[in-house]
Amino acid sequence: MAYTIPILETLIDEFRKMPSVGTKSAERMAFYVLGLTDEETHRFANAIVGAHEKIHQCAVCRNLTEDEICPICQSPTRDKSTICVVENPRDVIAFERTHEYKGMYHVLHGAISPMNSVGPDDLTIKELLVRLNDDTVNEVIMATNPTVEGEATAMYIGRLLKPLGLKVTRLAYGVPVGADLEYADEVTLTRALAGRSLL
Amino acid sequence: MAYTIPILETLIDEFRKMPSVGTKSAERMAFYVLGLTDEETHRFANAIVGAHEKIHQCAVCRNLTEDEICPICQSPTRDKSTICVVENPRDVIAFERTHEYKGMYHVLHGAISPMNSVGPDDLTIKELLVRLNDDTVNEVIMATNPTVEGEATAMYIGRLLKPLGLKVTRLAYGVPVGADLEYADEVTLTRALAGRSLL
Repeated sequence: MAYTIPILETLIDEFRKMPSVGTKSAERMAFYVLGLTDEETHRFANAIVGAHEKIHQCAVCRNLTEDEICPICQSPTRDKSTICVVENPRDVIAFERTHEYKGMYHVLHGAISPMNSVGPDDLTIKELLVRLNDDTVNEVIMATNPTVEGEATAMYIGRLLKPLGLKVTRLAYGVPVGADLEYADEVTLTRALAGRSLL
Repeated sequence: MAYTIPILETLIDEFRKMPSVGTKSAERMAFYVLGLTDEETHRFANAIVGAHEKIHQCAVCRNLTEDEICPICQSPTRDKSTICVVENPRDVIAFERTHEYKGMYHVLHGAISPMNSVGPDDLTIKELLVRLNDDTVNEVIMATNPTVEGEATAMYIGRLLKPLGLKVTRLAYGVPVGADLEYADEVTLTRALAGRSLL
């Protein structure tokens, strides 16, 4: 570009680094920032720094939280006999949106993927096994993505858990195969939960 | 939502306020921030605050700049006899991307729009007239958007300038009518510049 404002280019670059943001969107976002008041700008910047500093993994379920133990793990009204195993925290948000699931979660932070050199040890599988040591849990719902990696992860963990005498289930294929779980709508997710089958 | 991390919701809300960002995109952006290093997070936040604090309008052309007078107005190689009048700073970036236009700019910061109560006094038209006081400028190219508001603005300014004995031109309709100028590609903008006609 023949003419640039370096500090504006820097901001556009920062926005462009975000997922699914192209140059045009990044430019629009940068100009949006220029149009904010001073107060709005600082609120925006502080939200970024604040969320990054204060959010970490729950000591129990590995979901993201501001607390030592997340509100779901702390809640006395949640059903502690069921654990829903998901790939990432966005999937927890998707399930909570259904208002149907009342059990616990376990966040793997990924899926087994030899292509991306992600093996079982890179996921929070050890932490899941620790949670199954007492007799509180009856059922583990494998709610990994309906992709090759998600299926492989569900199979792998299922094989680990079945010898423990647990009921291990898999989401019904109400969710469209090959898509990303976090984009499923509430109705589809609710049906997938209701129709879950033995693994 | 049954389960939320307040500080994460705050960040998602901040992203959702940006133009053409929906809830899903905002969530993805927020999780992107959580995955950054501390250094990357501060660089991102500082880019937002820095750009907002340091960028203001050029005293001459009203384009955005970090300096008192922008690099284009300061440049000794630009053709000072031609002024291209655009609605907003993004349009300047679009023209600079063509590498064809070597004249000056004037940024109106909007277009006349009675529907949105934007009148001529809300634009930088007075500042444009001041720039035409000496005999440096021969031609003013009206490069407002090919929309109802942009056309009305071009007509209005054209009528003000023609008594001054200036050549006042309008972009050729290489640009698709009804669309936003900033999305036009380089070739279309170059053709629109080349085919400009007397207003």
